[in-house]
Amino acid sequence: MLDQPIMAIDRRTPGPLYRKLKNEILRRIRLGVLRPGDRLPPTRQLALELGVNRGTVSAAYDELTGDGILESHVGRGTFVAALIPLEPLAPGDRPPGYRWPDHFAGVHPPEPRNYPSTGDKPVIALHRNIPDESLFPTDGFRESLNEVLRNGGRSLLSYAPVGGHPEFLSFLREYLRENRRLEVGPGEMLVVNGSQQALDLIGRAFLRPGDTVLVEDPTYTGALEMFEALSARPVGVSTDEGGIRLEDTERLFARERPKFIYVMPTFQNPTGVSLASGRREALVRLAARYEIPVIEDDFDGELHYDGEAPPPLKSGPDSQGVIYIGTPSKMLFPGLRIGWILAEEPVIERLGRIKQVADLSGSQLLPAAFARFAITGGLERHKEKVRAAYRARRDALLGALERHMPRGCTWSRPAGGMTLLVTLPAPVDFDALLENTAREGVLFTPGPWFYVSGGDRELRLCFGSVAEEAVEPGVIVLAREVRRALERGGRPLPARRKPSLPSV
Amino acid sequence: MLDQPIMAIDRRTPGPLYRKLKNEILRRIRLGVLRPGDRLPPTRQLALELGVNRGTVSAAYDELTGDGILESHVGRGTFVAALIPLEPLAPGDRPPGYRWPDHFAGVHPPEPRNYPSTGDKPVIALHRNIPDESLFPTDGFRESLNEVLRNGGRSLLSYAPVGGHPEFLSFLREYLRENRRLEVGPGEMLVVNGSQQALDLIGRAFLRPGDTVLVEDPTYTGALEMFEALSARPVGVSTDEGGIRLEDTERLFARERPKFIYVMPTFQNPTGVSLASGRREALVRLAARYEIPVIEDDFDGELHYDGEAPPPLKSGPDSQGVIYIGTPSKMLFPGLRIGWILAEEPVIERLGRIKQVADLSGSQLLPAAFARFAITGGLERHKEKVRAAYRARRDALLGALERHMPRGCTWSRPAGGMTLLVTLPAPVDFDALLENTAREGVLFTPGPWFYVSGGDRELRLCFGSVAEEAVEPGVIVLAREVRRALERGGRPLPARRKPSLPSV
Repeated sequence: MLDQPIMAIDRRTPGPLYRKLKNEILRRIRLGVLRPGDRLPPTRQLALELGVNRGTVSAAYDELTGDGILESHVGRGTFVAALIPLEPLAPGDRPPGYRWPDHFAGVHPPEPRNYPSTGDKPVIALHRNIPDESLFPTDGFRESLNEVLRNGGRSLLSYAPVGGHPEFLSFLREYLRENRRLEVGPGEMLVVNGSQQALDLIGRAFLRPGDTVLVEDPTYTGALEMFEALSARPVGVSTDEGGIRLEDTERLFARERPKFIYVMPTFQNPTGVSLASGRREALVRLAARYEIPVIEDDFDGELHYDGEAPPPLKSGPDSQGVIYIGTPSKMLFPGLRIGWILAEEPVIERLGRIKQVADLSGSQLLPAAFARFAITGGLERHKEKVRAAYRARRDALLGALERHMPRGCTWSRPAGGMTLLVTLPAPVDFDALLENTAREGVLFTPGPWFYVSGGDRELRLCFGSVAEEAVEPGVIVLAREVRRALERGGRPLPARRKPSLPSV
Repeated sequence: MLDQPIMAIDRRTPGPLYRKLKNEILRRIRLGVLRPGDRLPPTRQLALELGVNRGTVSAAYDELTGDGILESHVGRGTFVAALIPLEPLAPGDRPPGYRWPDHFAGVHPPEPRNYPSTGDKPVIALHRNIPDESLFPTDGFRESLNEVLRNGGRSLLSYAPVGGHPEFLSFLREYLRENRRLEVGPGEMLVVNGSQQALDLIGRAFLRPGDTVLVEDPTYTGALEMFEALSARPVGVSTDEGGIRLEDTERLFARERPKFIYVMPTFQNPTGVSLASGRREALVRLAARYEIPVIEDDFDGELHYDGEAPPPLKSGPDSQGVIYIGTPSKMLFPGLRIGWILAEEPVIERLGRIKQVADLSGSQLLPAAFARFAITGGLERHKEKVRAAYRARRDALLGALERHMPRGCTWSRPAGGMTLLVTLPAPVDFDALLENTAREGVLFTPGPWFYVSGGDRELRLCFGSVAEEAVEPGVIVLAREVRRALERGGRPLPARRKPSLPSV
């Protein structure tokens, strides 16, 4: 059958329609979109689709049948002939240009989703889950870069082994033991280009189109986007103030037989909530009983404000099925493009081979400078500094929400990370709400972007890249517009919006 | 049917075999490898595969049928029941560990292929198509890094727009106009992590499993590996001293209807040969007539030794179907992990969205430092320096081959790049030949690694990372071992070896 995209006939150029249709069919055969033996749509159907006379379609089919390109079988339909004497354009003809959408055939990434313009208003960026540029330790990091380049820099400028430079892996092992209580063997680590590449490699290793994965509902938009690109089917596990519910998880393990479960057990994005301590080992054991891999995304576990963060799932007992992702993007800065995966050796070996196909290897220079910055104490000082700054901003945000948000609104109270989730008492029209706050320079992220289904009463606020003194003015605008939106009443939302990626 | 991998029964643990088989079937149902309605193999066949008694298989099937897990239909076979009352392991049971190969389901990258050990001999690296570390301009590049980090460095440490930093894109446009005669619009460029990522993104955008692509035969192993990972089918176009033959290309365009053709028209890897000037525009026009995209990999076009390199296909007329890949990895150093893709806007837009899923964005810092290094003249000086060095090494290699190789051997004479291809008068046993030269510290790359089919008389030599004075000693060892191998006679090789990736 004629496949998507539907054939188009250009009516602006001169010449009879049936001939244009004939040429379009020939073009599709030439491109391999239509293959020998494929059945063409009945003339009536195609005529309807194209908005042309049925006779036009018949004329095109007839000529092609006469040329031996199509074959007609009474009662069965019209088919592309098994052997087709196909000529390219005559050498003198001007090539008509490439119609690219006809050529795309692989991964289908979702459409990007954009925030509305804030005009010339200064932006209060409650939508950006990224660290504050003004806090970046540029000079200290520059010193580390210089030191590693001065001492044996040449080899840092060549290709790295795909899994990472051995010296960096040694550093990382020590670092993770001290900072995240993780004990890993040398063959159990892979260095990647940030945690998004970790997700992509894992998706490519485990998922076929149609496969099911479990996710926290709400979850990270970049993960939803990866699943969509690979045609995998995310199924949401319900969450409460202690993270995902285990009964629901077990029910879905048994019913859905997912390829894996993807979780952010520490300072989750978007809620900021951590998986309750009583559920952490239980989740790992439950997954092991079903032999379902657990993807643990620990992207911001070191940004804790009320005492230590909970230890990662991967640091606990029976965690051989946990595939752990870490990164310095949030605690230091994202421009490093570094991440790491910890997992049992067969997984690391597989992911490393996929990474080799994906990009041969990452930079060695930036990881080496990161290690140097950590070893010389710069990273620890930086972490203390940003923890204090982000703690103050979180407190400012919680206070402002308390003072200004309309009655009936609730929100999560994160002990770390840079995000929280607000729940409104009723659904609102998020497009209008976001347009209205954007006019005042205030941006946030609508709930539906994070949910497999629902989220029509939720919105995410980030406090990482908003100056402390800008938090309250931002919340005042948001609260006012939320109140108005609630008064206007919500527009019913489609049950499931296509998720896509906000900035992070 | 029971899918690969074949079920294994562990005979070392105690307990009856039929029960182990039963548990293995249950495990596969739990994992979703066996799904409701799947047919199990006949008892006789499975017994044969497992090397057990047929009664053992029947006993397992019978118990599972009694439990309602399987259903038996006379004359049709045994099936997984449509509704299965499946329990996980009892909570007290120790989870048995994850059998990872059962979980992998996505991309299947080929096994890595390794060179034999050279023991404690100093290596003469005729196998490595990478630039010489000892020539890297570490100090000059460090200065550029410092300058960009001092002037507005903070924003260079945050996330980049997925396509690249606008300032870098402006620089790149200018750079490509001056150095490669390329004229590109602002929406026609994408910055990526080296040319391997360019290949991977293009593969993911255009290819479905089973799709055909045309390649020069021989071609780059990293491209062959990418095709294999995506289950695409490369078909080789024959080449001569002028590159691919156009009659063969046209015949294959018509017969195979490939999704694209992948070529290295300038200083090709492994041959070092450039596509003849009379064939360059003709190839582009031919592809346009069939509307087949041309992937032009221009990884080393700036490493020319006998006058200017030919201009890229993308710089010529009617080149809207050319998707161009460039990189500084060979002319400067690979540790930058930078590459760029030039193509029409719909292609760039698509590839950018796939890159966003793949890793959000690359580093901004390293491209900025590269641009600074180029703008301040360091890059031009470096290119002059390495052209002189590699030219001398090429000449040393050609001279040494002339003096030492056995009669009947021929080789390509590259005007640029860092590789050439030797053709022997008869096939040899490459495993043995490589073992023998490795014992003397000399490594090369066997022909079959580069060929879709054949290559059993070819081998690749690289002169980029071998000091000039080491070239002749290396060739003397190679020539001696080739002579011995020819005297021993060749071992017939399989018609098509699985290609895999040497270091580059």
